[in-house]
Amino acid sequence: MTIEANETAMKDSGRRGGRDARRQARASKLSDQDRPIWPGLPGGKYQVLTPADMQKIHHKILDVLEQIGFADAIPSTIEYMTKAGAVMGEDGRMRFPRALVEDTIAKAARRFPLYAQDPRYDMDPWGKNVYYGTAGAAVNVVEPLTGEYRESTVVDLYDCARIVDHCDNIHFFQRTNVCRELPSPRDLDINTAYASVVGTTKHVGTGMTHPDHVTEVLEMLHMIAGGEDKWRERPFVSQSNCFVVPPLKFAEDACKCLEVAVLGGMPVLLLSAGQAGATAPASLAGTVVQAVAECLVGLIYVNAIKPGAPYIFGTWPFVSDLRTGAMSGGSPEQALLSSACGQMANFYDLNGGTGAGMCDSKVIDFQAGYEKAYNLTLVGNAGTNLIYEAAGMHASLLGICKETLVADNDIIAAAQRTMRGIDTSDEALDIETIRNVCIGGPGHYLGSDQTLHLMQRDYVYPSIGDRWSPNEWNERGRPTYVDRAVKKTAEILKNHHPKHISREVDDAIRAKFPIKLDRKDMGEVA
Amino acid sequence: MTIEANETAMKDSGRRGGRDARRQARASKLSDQDRPIWPGLPGGKYQVLTPADMQKIHHKILDVLEQIGFADAIPSTIEYMTKAGAVMGEDGRMRFPRALVEDTIAKAARRFPLYAQDPRYDMDPWGKNVYYGTAGAAVNVVEPLTGEYRESTVVDLYDCARIVDHCDNIHFFQRTNVCRELPSPRDLDINTAYASVVGTTKHVGTGMTHPDHVTEVLEMLHMIAGGEDKWRERPFVSQSNCFVVPPLKFAEDACKCLEVAVLGGMPVLLLSAGQAGATAPASLAGTVVQAVAECLVGLIYVNAIKPGAPYIFGTWPFVSDLRTGAMSGGSPEQALLSSACGQMANFYDLNGGTGAGMCDSKVIDFQAGYEKAYNLTLVGNAGTNLIYEAAGMHASLLGICKETLVADNDIIAAAQRTMRGIDTSDEALDIETIRNVCIGGPGHYLGSDQTLHLMQRDYVYPSIGDRWSPNEWNERGRPTYVDRAVKKTAEILKNHHPKHISREVDDAIRAKFPIKLDRKDMGEVA
Repeated sequence: MTIEANETAMKDSGRRGGRDARRQARASKLSDQDRPIWPGLPGGKYQVLTPADMQKIHHKILDVLEQIGFADAIPSTIEYMTKAGAVMGEDGRMRFPRALVEDTIAKAARRFPLYAQDPRYDMDPWGKNVYYGTAGAAVNVVEPLTGEYRESTVVDLYDCARIVDHCDNIHFFQRTNVCRELPSPRDLDINTAYASVVGTTKHVGTGMTHPDHVTEVLEMLHMIAGGEDKWRERPFVSQSNCFVVPPLKFAEDACKCLEVAVLGGMPVLLLSAGQAGATAPASLAGTVVQAVAECLVGLIYVNAIKPGAPYIFGTWPFVSDLRTGAMSGGSPEQALLSSACGQMANFYDLNGGTGAGMCDSKVIDFQAGYEKAYNLTLVGNAGTNLIYEAAGMHASLLGICKETLVADNDIIAAAQRTMRGIDTSDEALDIETIRNVCIGGPGHYLGSDQTLHLMQRDYVYPSIGDRWSPNEWNERGRPTYVDRAVKKTAEILKNHHPKHISREVDDAIRAKFPIKLDRKDMGEVA
Repeated sequence: MTIEANETAMKDSGRRGGRDARRQARASKLSDQDRPIWPGLPGGKYQVLTPADMQKIHHKILDVLEQIGFADAIPSTIEYMTKAGAVMGEDGRMRFPRALVEDTIAKAARRFPLYAQDPRYDMDPWGKNVYYGTAGAAVNVVEPLTGEYRESTVVDLYDCARIVDHCDNIHFFQRTNVCRELPSPRDLDINTAYASVVGTTKHVGTGMTHPDHVTEVLEMLHMIAGGEDKWRERPFVSQSNCFVVPPLKFAEDACKCLEVAVLGGMPVLLLSAGQAGATAPASLAGTVVQAVAECLVGLIYVNAIKPGAPYIFGTWPFVSDLRTGAMSGGSPEQALLSSACGQMANFYDLNGGTGAGMCDSKVIDFQAGYEKAYNLTLVGNAGTNLIYEAAGMHASLLGICKETLVADNDIIAAAQRTMRGIDTSDEALDIETIRNVCIGGPGHYLGSDQTLHLMQRDYVYPSIGDRWSPNEWNERGRPTYVDRAVKKTAEILKNHHPKHISREVDDAIRAKFPIKLDRKDMGEVA
């Protein structure tokens, strides 16, 4: 079968096979509406940009693409893109006529799912549906009790994947850290993919540095899926791809990786990761313009390679502390930028993703809590489809902390609760409850039917956070938040080892690829 | 002069005198627009309730007031209210015809300022303007390094007032704690008012337990203002008044205090402090209905006593952890309730206030940070006019921590920044900045004119929070957030002793009232 024929087969059987699997998954999710929160719970109550703002920004974007364009296109990019309608200028910049941009937006795939190894975790990242997940290429693991930053490893990556697998409110796993002990790019790319997909059955995102590694990773994924056709039916790994070096330049290696991924049926996270005040304008609106413009070029690119190819519209700008030029992932300006980017994906009705939930703090402290909370809550309420970096990250992405993953799972629950809003149905607003309590009733609502009924449906409860009185807390010996997070995380790591990949398949993978993750680190008795 | 004549004089000269003072204050505030945030910065980007929701809630409120009404009215309340049009039922409940409620809403004072001793701190708490301040009647002070809860005192209260006076983003001071060493209610009420007004020149809110104490406090405030007429021109203290015991019962002593306050020209915070699932419905929408209905009765009350009297529409419901019945001030449900209440005040165009920024955590930790952040950010973004409990509170109001006041000042800055949103002016969206950087430019924005220009205007910076890299943080010896907060708070307490009340006036106050705050605790050398 040619790649094209494969793609058609994927499309047909993918639609059918996917739909069946998803229907089945839905059945087991029927109880969602009886829970206070659920994966994909929609946002939309916080809107940074007005409809008029978005129109204005859209027109500026068209100007940027038509007038300024991109530098540093490689030959294959030029071939794909000029065929589609892009124009190479004499100054070496590639420019994009309005009609090309608008046609691409009109014809791009939209409202398509992101698959998971376990169909229960499939995601519908469109409209105002919101999913939270990890990301980052942290180079350190943060030790929660000491604040020590140590070099991160493949075991750390695997541990993070399984924590995410366990946490209900972290809906997908993009690789959290670099495996520092693997200096070879090939070892790194293959092991990063491997440790992620064996650690969780949720959707995985990972990065690759060379097109050959993409091919190898695809081969490994075919083995896990049970064949290339099965993989193409339900591609459960996406490629995090920085095809653009902001401002407005193509990145050579990433472009090559993108092309292999698109042809291989792997969704591409089209990642524009500028930094306002450094590689993007200090004006937040200007940064939104640049980020969206850059991602639209990515969208043109994937569609030029293969019309309707899956992508994630990854407008993902960061913020500089303008006093020093250093990144500030925990800033309120970050919340604004990410919210606005989430809205722009909604504006185009594209499956969008952005970063939020980072913090500047080095450890699990007050600052980390507040920086994460306003970012996670606002960006979710903005209706951003896929929120990356939503858990575990410290020091503006330089460190990942396993305990913080578990802690952030609680913040996300709260954020989702605020997104769900207030039920104003006739039942919720029935004043008979008030009447019955006040007139001839007990004068309080403690034991009312409504109270007991809503206890699980309308209220969320933290897993690490406590609501003890000062006295109760004293009696327990004033346990710190960090101690509780450490304990909970240790329990998860001790007990949760996903076993969704058969020994047979794993043997085959280990025979073919240089897998560095030892089975004894995977919960197997030696 | 009769009270009535005084009131008229207050109105006339108040308008004139107030306007002059405010014009003068405005002049010194001209630089606000060049700052990223400012007091009163408007919200509105987060809307929990749709306009249709608010209409629906409004009609349920009218039903509750007309059909269920209030129990336990005292004679003076009955006299004022029935004269205004309320109806006493044979079952002892007072009911409120729709026309009375609607007329009261139509005729109530609106868009009036809350004054401060220093006119720079006057507030315009209407429309979607948002101010953050303290409140609470904490019975403990939290020691930040040990987590010890110790009994709070009048010196603590004075210290909290001075910290608020110093913090730019805490815009008013309502008494934070009970002075536990003062068992006499008279001593407590007088000293609470005194320690607050000598500790800050911002608007003060305080509570009183007996109508005679209100009279005495008013006398003290007349002395500070320079006479009763001056006080009535610019009443700079409001009375926090729980005239209602939810659900739907009048509170005898509070009603008496309310009457004295209204006649004395003191704005009354009409406080409905039910707790969803306990003294208010577990249905959040039901709790909003009850809280707003209760506050509307307060509004009828103050207007029955004196048409157009100043008030704060204090819909201030709390949340229960339904598993235990304990209050959960840090819950996401609290953010929803407070946001919805802020919106309902906007719906009626009344000067509204609610509580937000509480936490369940006992100390300055991750949980405290995240609980505070989503509450402060969302409730501000909802456009709530006056946000009480916004700083310093722990353990669902059982503890006040001075260091947390300073820490919360940073969260409020961030919350306000998210409320300000993204500038989409032509200047902010000018793509020439992008063109100049990308085409023949440096390829980055680090030194661009726009970047330098926006550094102070569009970005906020934390005062305790740090943005050091892990290396920088290491080199500094990994200072904890709490250590930094302790240090900063100690500096403020050492250096900041407001001296706005003359020695002469203070001598007179001390001669007349049982003032317990020692001058040596006020920064005076013995």
